[in-house]
Amino acid sequence: MVLLQGSIVAQALKNDIKAEVECILSENKRVPHLAAILVGENGASKTYVSNKIKACKEVGFQSTIINLDENVSQHVLINEIEKLNNNSSIDGILVQLPLPQQINEQDIVKSIHPSKDVDGFHPLNTGKLLTGNPDFIPATPLGIVLMLSHYNIETSGKKVVVIGRSNIVGRPISILLSQPGKNGDATLTVCHSRTNNIEQICLEADIVIAAVGIPNFIKGNMIKNGAVVIDVGITRVPDTSKKLGYSIKGDVAFDEVFEKCSYITPVPGGVGLMTIAALMKNTLHAYYLHEGN
Amino acid sequence: MVLLQGSIVAQALKNDIKAEVECILSENKRVPHLAAILVGENGASKTYVSNKIKACKEVGFQSTIINLDENVSQHVLINEIEKLNNNSSIDGILVQLPLPQQINEQDIVKSIHPSKDVDGFHPLNTGKLLTGNPDFIPATPLGIVLMLSHYNIETSGKKVVVIGRSNIVGRPISILLSQPGKNGDATLTVCHSRTNNIEQICLEADIVIAAVGIPNFIKGNMIKNGAVVIDVGITRVPDTSKKLGYSIKGDVAFDEVFEKCSYITPVPGGVGLMTIAALMKNTLHAYYLHEGN
Repeated sequence: MVLLQGSIVAQALKNDIKAEVECILSENKRVPHLAAILVGENGASKTYVSNKIKACKEVGFQSTIINLDENVSQHVLINEIEKLNNNSSIDGILVQLPLPQQINEQDIVKSIHPSKDVDGFHPLNTGKLLTGNPDFIPATPLGIVLMLSHYNIETSGKKVVVIGRSNIVGRPISILLSQPGKNGDATLTVCHSRTNNIEQICLEADIVIAAVGIPNFIKGNMIKNGAVVIDVGITRVPDTSKKLGYSIKGDVAFDEVFEKCSYITPVPGGVGLMTIAALMKNTLHAYYLHEGN
Repeated sequence: MVLLQGSIVAQALKNDIKAEVECILSENKRVPHLAAILVGENGASKTYVSNKIKACKEVGFQSTIINLDENVSQHVLINEIEKLNNNSSIDGILVQLPLPQQINEQDIVKSIHPSKDVDGFHPLNTGKLLTGNPDFIPATPLGIVLMLSHYNIETSGKKVVVIGRSNIVGRPISILLSQPGKNGDATLTVCHSRTNNIEQICLEADIVIAAVGIPNFIKGNMIKNGAVVIDVGITRVPDTSKKLGYSIKGDVAFDEVFEKCSYITPVPGGVGLMTIAALMKNTLHAYYLHEGN
């Protein structure tokens, strides 16, 4: 069993990006700039945003955090986004999800200019992905593809089972891996809460991608010998033995699964790290869209 | 075995649309108007466009055909589309595909205003479909969903196998049928030319949707007893016994399959008729977008 180490692959990717930024600097040009909007005080959201900003610093990007109150109106939030859309020194805009109830996430996603949509959630960008001409690929699926590619894991002709049909992970990864060409050409099955006999479907898979958000959902008896297991789950579970009072659990019962599979991502230290590195890659892409390459 | 009769379902749909047009007329408003652009002299394309225009007449829509020469430049074609985009008496624009080699189809699709994109091929519309907020659903997948719904064929929890990953059929139907809610919630597998052991995958399916474009691709030994079979194929095969010199063949070896399945679409007379009726539905939707409902 080989551990798919997000730390190593993400670091390699960030090193490449850092080298590009150094190149940009050597030409006396401005560096890429990511703006993150954080609404409210959700602990997980704060951690995600702070990790993204930390990654920006690591690779040499400029970054800005805009903190808005939990009770902010949709109108005010869209106004902030508009300012960033019109600010030519900003390349990428991310609005950390989830948002409070008074705000319609779809409206927010649509208000970000498609050329600054580094999360790849704008319908124009998801449409480009679906039709095989992607511009911005959502960071988690992009991270998974980069991870599989780094470890030379073949996808062509393989049976891939994705569990979860979210717009952020399940949908885009199932499209990417079944598209023609490198890192694609897999036979994709998408499972979800209404799927019958999910154990049997998983057992037939060469690659299982779990994006359910339920700790220990994937048991040892659902994985065939030699399968590749990608765990997208990041759930905070109360844990008094930890300083923070919680630990992070994936969707996979790691202890049951790891001996059967050929490759597996740990949680933490797997897909999560790739997501952040992929966001940096998207921000660099946005920069080149704006500045020319 | 029940024959899924496109003629009956499409006629019911067109009757509903016709009743709406009569209602519009009774209010002394303008009627919906579809413009079709036909490039060159491809026989199948001419037939498709003429059938679409015929359906417009049937339901009471206004229609316009714009014929352009096979050698037309991309620039001239986009100019024609722009004129239609800016013409407030036109609700829907369709450019019959395929287009000649000198023209980039993606550029053409993107040049149609999303609110007039009755084929649902603009990336913004495919993106809305992917994220579960569809505006225009491409006509063939919409026709299939309406057909399944008409015959009360349950999709929730069913294993659906789609063969083909085109932007026009395979991709959108796989998304629609796996979305949460009515006519959705199926467990979807998408197969294609790189899929291994496709016979076995089809044999496990409750519903098989064949969109390959290869006559007789689906044999009797690929279908389990009681399955539902939807045949999207429309291939012209030379046939000297026919007046036109060809006959139309689906992807399914009908004679082998029909005794095993519970429901099956004939070709012709199945999905093709639904596609045209669904296009009328999309044109009416575009009209309401422009005129208010």
